[in-house]
Amino acid sequence: MATLCRPAIAVPEYVITREQTLELARTLHADHPQLELALRLIGNTGVQTRHLVQPIEDTLKHPGFTVRNARYEREAKARVPDVVRRALENAEVSAQDIDMIVYVSCTGFMMPSMTAWLINTMDFKAETRQLPIAQLGCAAGGAAINRAHDFCTAYPTANVLIVACEFCSLLYQPTDLGVGNLLSNGLFGDALAAAVVRGAGGHGVRIERNGSHLVPDTEEWISYGVRDTGFHFILDKRVPGTMAMLAPAMRDMARPYDWDVSELDFYIVHAGGPRILDDLGRYLGLSQETFRYSRATLTERGNIASAVIFDALDRLFEDGGADDSARGVIAGFGPGITAEIALGTWTVPGNGRDGDRVAGRESVTLPA
Amino acid sequence: MATLCRPAIAVPEYVITREQTLELARTLHADHPQLELALRLIGNTGVQTRHLVQPIEDTLKHPGFTVRNARYEREAKARVPDVVRRALENAEVSAQDIDMIVYVSCTGFMMPSMTAWLINTMDFKAETRQLPIAQLGCAAGGAAINRAHDFCTAYPTANVLIVACEFCSLLYQPTDLGVGNLLSNGLFGDALAAAVVRGAGGHGVRIERNGSHLVPDTEEWISYGVRDTGFHFILDKRVPGTMAMLAPAMRDMARPYDWDVSELDFYIVHAGGPRILDDLGRYLGLSQETFRYSRATLTERGNIASAVIFDALDRLFEDGGADDSARGVIAGFGPGITAEIALGTWTVPGNGRDGDRVAGRESVTLPA
Repeated sequence: MATLCRPAIAVPEYVITREQTLELARTLHADHPQLELALRLIGNTGVQTRHLVQPIEDTLKHPGFTVRNARYEREAKARVPDVVRRALENAEVSAQDIDMIVYVSCTGFMMPSMTAWLINTMDFKAETRQLPIAQLGCAAGGAAINRAHDFCTAYPTANVLIVACEFCSLLYQPTDLGVGNLLSNGLFGDALAAAVVRGAGGHGVRIERNGSHLVPDTEEWISYGVRDTGFHFILDKRVPGTMAMLAPAMRDMARPYDWDVSELDFYIVHAGGPRILDDLGRYLGLSQETFRYSRATLTERGNIASAVIFDALDRLFEDGGADDSARGVIAGFGPGITAEIALGTWTVPGNGRDGDRVAGRESVTLPA
Repeated sequence: MATLCRPAIAVPEYVITREQTLELARTLHADHPQLELALRLIGNTGVQTRHLVQPIEDTLKHPGFTVRNARYEREAKARVPDVVRRALENAEVSAQDIDMIVYVSCTGFMMPSMTAWLINTMDFKAETRQLPIAQLGCAAGGAAINRAHDFCTAYPTANVLIVACEFCSLLYQPTDLGVGNLLSNGLFGDALAAAVVRGAGGHGVRIERNGSHLVPDTEEWISYGVRDTGFHFILDKRVPGTMAMLAPAMRDMARPYDWDVSELDFYIVHAGGPRILDDLGRYLGLSQETFRYSRATLTERGNIASAVIFDALDRLFEDGGADDSARGVIAGFGPGITAEIALGTWTVPGNGRDGDRVAGRESVTLPA
């Protein structure tokens, strides 16, 4: 089994409010022919505050991809260790207990990746497997959980550390003036998350099965233009409607398992935007209250890409968690368009089903 | 179990010889204070020919990262399907039998990645897991095999398609003039590889265990500078000496398994440069004949990054393969500095140990 333990979350110190965002859009794009539409779309996101790695004045400058990416590296190295340390504590494991690090981030590029730096810097074993994923965007948090689940299924006593580090504000492109860009500029925020998936022991979401679904022929709907000026985020106006395709995929994935995805006890889903949550509720016949944790993430932090589901899950923990054996779903959505979905049951401390601490585990270097 | 079947390899149609490479270096860098050293280093690589996705005249131009990366995407989409088709044939599986695609490439960046395009274009299931890896460089081929092994260990009837697509020539940076750059310009080549790892059935290398090793504090030795002009490859002169650290790591990984890594029957290792192979032979007490397949790849195609081990493995297949149950190692080396190592046994058709064809397999969506 594989239990996703309580995540650790961090947001940077610079804050921008909804009012400031709208005022900025009005000022920067006063002559834009679709300004009113953009303002309405930004207003509809429901995002009240977002956090940024630097003051908004600096965010709005584009110093070139060289400087931008160097900033990504500096900020990641400054901020990731704290969430990693807290995630290890939450899971009651040490760095030496970790067998794989899955590092997901689509807002900067490093080779070697942060996995190597973390191993060198934070007392992880030299044998720790490194799995850096840069190309799954907002779906990468779900992919990280799912690959960690696979790994713990292969090696039942393994532990996997997941890190999601997203500085979306470093992708601001002042020359991109489509309505989708103006909306994105008002939607995305910066955040970091880390969480441990324990093969044995741990409290949180015991992952029972995972799956992936690609919506056919929607590659262009969410994509990066890769240019001299870095990554340019391209958002098609059809994206908010994708729950029409993904809700059935979630239903199908749960069915062979005899779970009805409309009757689960908790839902931790990617809050890409408000309509994702509205539509998912509609297609699955669920009240909006169902998605309150994801909605809170969106409202307080914006779309924080691959970190959303961890932030929402942390809110469920903060809220006291679910009942023992309660059934739930975690779903990340992102470019492809891809959904990465995990079904799991809540497991509480001391339910006697498993040891709480990592102790005397076998080597994980041999297949089970 | 997980069996790595015969890879399919492709090289682009434009060829540059050793003589042309040396002549170019002499012409382009006539005034370079260390030209003679660079020429000697290039000569010592033993590389006789390399293949490029475009004529050398075009390779030497830098049209900007925008154009370069668009070229990467165009060439990948034009060339990947062929190796994928042949790899599926080699493994006697269809696209519908594949449960995960691991796409490794460090010479271009796309989001969504090629995994989404392949699923949309080549009749893969919408549920195929996507694992794009861009940040493990030359070690990524080994990482792909190892993650495929993990996946098949978790889901014993699963099949994983690996694709390695490396157009190193698209990373040529005319303004990088360090001796390491001049050497790299004469060392790397372009190539594509694909291979299927079958959880059940198949002939080739049955992976028995896998492991990873990071050499402490060598992050700077192989790295990318990420700049307005794209990825800049940075190679430290200490890199060729890393076998002093990695040979013991290979030995350690084999020991708990009661295998002596100096007494295996076949060796498929990354041919990053000639000294990697020389030193590995020296530290493991092996003749140079041992690495003949990797050496042939280096000689005929240059360092083709994550594709090297597949090209070398294909040469072992071409040579008639090994005896049934012969023991061997596959090792990719790359930035970190990271080694991704797999130990396996050769399995031949009709040895009765397993079904040869994919038939009546269970769903892989439930954990084993």
